This record gives sequence, structure tokens and C-alpha cells, in this order.
Amino acid sequence: MKEKLTIVKVGGAVVEDELQLAQLLRDFSAIEGRKVLVHGGGRRATKMAERLGIETKMVDGRRITDADMLEVVTMVYGGLVNKHVVAELQAIGVDAIGLCGADGDIIRSVKRPPKNGIDYGFVGDVKQVDGAKIAHFIEKNLVPTIAPLTHDGQGNILNTNADTMASETAKALAQLYDVTLIFSFEKRGVLSNPDDDESVIPVITRSDFERYKADGTISGGMLPKIENALAAVEAGVSQVIITLATAIDGQHGTIIK
Amino acid sequence: MKEKLTIVKVGGAVVEDELQLAQLLRDFSAIEGRKVLVHGGGRRATKMAERLGIETKMVDGRRITDADMLEVVTMVYGGLVNKHVVAELQAIGVDAIGLCGADGDIIRSVKRPPKNGIDYGFVGDVKQVDGAKIAHFIEKNLVPTIAPLTHDGQGNILNTNADTMASETAKALAQLYDVTLIFSFEKRGVLSNPDDDESVIPVITRSDFERYKADGTISGGMLPKIENALAAVEAGVSQVIITLATAIDGQHGTIIK
Repeated sequence: MKEKLTIVKVGGAVVEDELQLAQLLRDFSAIEGRKVLVHGGGRRATKMAERLGIETKMVDGRRITDADMLEVVTMVYGGLVNKHVVAELQAIGVDAIGLCGADGDIIRSVKRPPKNGIDYGFVGDVKQVDGAKIAHFIEKNLVPTIAPLTHDGQGNILNTNADTMASETAKALAQLYDVTLIFSFEKRGVLSNPDDDESVIPVITRSDFERYKADGTISGGMLPKIENALAAVEAGVSQVIITLATAIDGQHGTIIK
Repeated sequence: MKEKLTIVKVGGAVVEDELQLAQLLRDFSAIEGRKVLVHGGGRRATKMAERLGIETKMVDGRRITDADMLEVVTMVYGGLVNKHVVAELQAIGVDAIGLCGADGDIIRSVKRPPKNGIDYGFVGDVKQVDGAKIAHFIEKNLVPTIAPLTHDGQGNILNTNADTMASETAKALAQLYDVTLIFSFEKRGVLSNPDDDESVIPVITRSDFERYKADGTISGGMLPKIENALAAVEAGVSQVIITLATAIDGQHGTIIK
């Protein structure tokens, strides 16, 4: 039987808020067994870009990353946010190690080609995750704390979506561990009624999803999120949990399996 | 017999210059055997601070690091410079892993108390280096690429002098390896005549140093540099080399032993 491993993805909104972040890191430290943290930092990057007079352009929620913006995300994700999170985790007894995809060549990507007239710039789509290398850190009782940056193997850092990095890392590590992937989220889980925070759907399987999609219970931005989660499950991840950032204990939210 | 390990320290001036940096990294990649890179980044930090309207204050060549400046150095050293260097090393076949002192708790420091009316702010003096942890990465054929940031174990990142980090890392690793520490420098080595670039002193021992100090051959800023190098040697480092950034092959410069 494979050993359990929990991967938690925390987004930019939580990273931005010192109190929320401290709470999330405490909850993360309480998770038993092997673990990995993947963080975003988009809001910090947007603020820093603004201070530097660099305009933030988004298309479909994705950041257009020109050379100036690449500098901003490299320093904000890889430096400001990552080292802050690592130092905070160390202070509460978690032996965190900050990594981006370039470190130890753990996550390599390819620069996204322009498509439909949109050039995302220095954005990387994940090509390969070295699960064995990441597992090596984990087996040394280190807790990989991953910033949403990858590299192309040719010397370029590329901005990469943190959700995707979490999913791809989960898939790679599912070869070696019994992986639970937790996406921290601004809602309690996937809701059957978007206006009712209590209407959390406890479990969604592929067949449930097809039904909810057909009858309109799930729509909009939740569709790709759940599709990605199901793809991770179909690639070997044991379960994906979508839950509040204050409820990452595995006992709350929607389980996708 | 201990295995050889080379630690190269590269300063902010080289890091700032793309061509010089690329050359140095190529030379670094050509060094045989186990190795570690320690980098600065002060000039980049000063430029970024300026763009953010943050004034750089130096006392005796050391940066006063208030909360705003700490943010700048954390993102510039830990993110912008470190990830750039790591990606470049990966591109030339060096399996670099970017680390600051907080990562894996490898280098812990204490905040420097104000002294003689000078408060350096968030500056850390190295307290302990976990040589075994760093060696563990080295034994996995990874090349630690260290940014000049440490942590205090209480959640705070502290700005730390890169020369000191290189020396302290060298001392800790000297327990496990036959360590050569190379300081890349703007001169060919320690000069017996500051106006003659050809007057490199090939070897300096403790007794040579005392003699050169007494007769005035070595003076000013070189004194603490050589004093630190001799202290490293006396703590077990096999040799310290002070040389040009374009001559880090161990065959040039001044050897302090």
C-alpha cells in the first residue's frame, strides 16, 4: 500500500492576507504525514507591478506575461512569497524547502505559443514533472513549498498557473504515493445552489459530474475546475478536495473521486 | 581522504552583467566534482529599490535593511537573481537548486542588535549552518545555489552578507569535504602594489599576512577580507582563493592557506 501524501494548493488571495495565511499554514502543519504546498501570489504580483508602473493585463483570468511582468512574478512568487511562506513554516516546525520548477529541474514547461491572436508571453505549459526528485526531498522529511514558476530548460523562467502545477505535481506523485490534492477555495466546496453556502455537494464522481453538467447544477467557471480535478483522479490521484482555506483538514468541502 | 568540494562566491557586480554572469556560470559548470554557488545581488536590489522609491542607505558598505528594503532584497535575491541563475545553470547542464537559509533550515541567523548607534535593521548574523543537510543535496548531485538571505527560526527572513554566507558554509562543509572557497573579485587577486594589476601575491599564509600587514603591503578593505579567509582556513577550509570572476578555475589569483 502506498504511503499517504497531501498536496495543498493555496491561492493568491490567502497569500495576500497575513492572518489568513498564518491560519492556513498552521492548519497545513497539522496535516499528518507527507505533504507538499503549492502557492499562488497573483494579487501580490499585481500590486508590485502597479508600484513599478507595469500594467497588469489578464485574458480569461490568465496573466499576460511580458518581459517586465516576468521579472515581477519571478521576484514576487519565487522570492517575496515563497521565502516568506518557507520562513513561516519553519517557525512552526515544518521543514519547508522552497522550490520553483527550475530548482532541481523538477518541473519543466514549454512556452505557450500564441493562439487565436492571444500571446500570453512568458507563460509555460507544464511538460514534465520529476516526481522521483520531488519524492526524494519528501523522503528526507522536507516539505516542498512550490512557487508557480517553471523553466524551459533553455535558461528561461516561465510563469505557470498554480492550479495546474498542483494538479501536475499530484499526478506525478500519484505514481509513488496515495495522493490527496486539496484546492483551497473561497467557498465551502462545490455548491448545488450558488446562493446557498450550505449546499455543498459532498462527493462528485465522473458520472455525477456528467449529470450535474447536463441538468445545469454545475456551470460556468466550476466546469473546468472539476474537469481538471477528474482528470487528476483519472491519472491516479486518489481524491481531489475543493474546500475553504480555513478547512483543509480533509474532512470538509467537496470530494472529487 | 575527503572528497573535493568547490564553493564559488559571485558578487552583485557580476550578477548584474548578463554577459559576465553567463561566462562565470559556464566556468563554474566546468569545475570538476562537487560544488556550491553563493551569489550576491546588491546592485540589482539597489536598482529595484530605486524604482520603488525606496532609498538605499549603506554604512561601511553594509545595507541598512528596514522593512521595505527587506521586501526588496527578499524578492531580488531570493526570486529574481536566484531563479535566473538556477535556470541558466540548468540550461548548461548543472542541476542547480536555489536555496536561501530558510529552505530546509540550512542557515539560521540572529538579527544584529543595534551597535554604536547604528541599527542595521533586518540583517542577520549567521548562527548555524546545517552542513549535513547541504551535503545531502550535494550527494544527490544537486548544486546548491545560495541566495544571501537567512532566517531566524521565528518566521523572519534576514538579509545576510554573501561573503559571510560563503565562508560560514565553507566552514560547515569542511567537516565533510576538502573545501576550496573561491571569492570572485574585481582584481586578479591580492596585489602587492594596488596600482599594478600584475602584482598578484600567489600565496598568503597567516605569517605572510602578519608580515604584509606590518609592512603596509596589505591595507584597507583587503585586511578584513584576508582575515576572514584565514579564519576559514583555520576552521578547516583547505584553501581560499581570491581571483577575477573570469578566472575561477583554481589556477589563478591569490591562494590563502
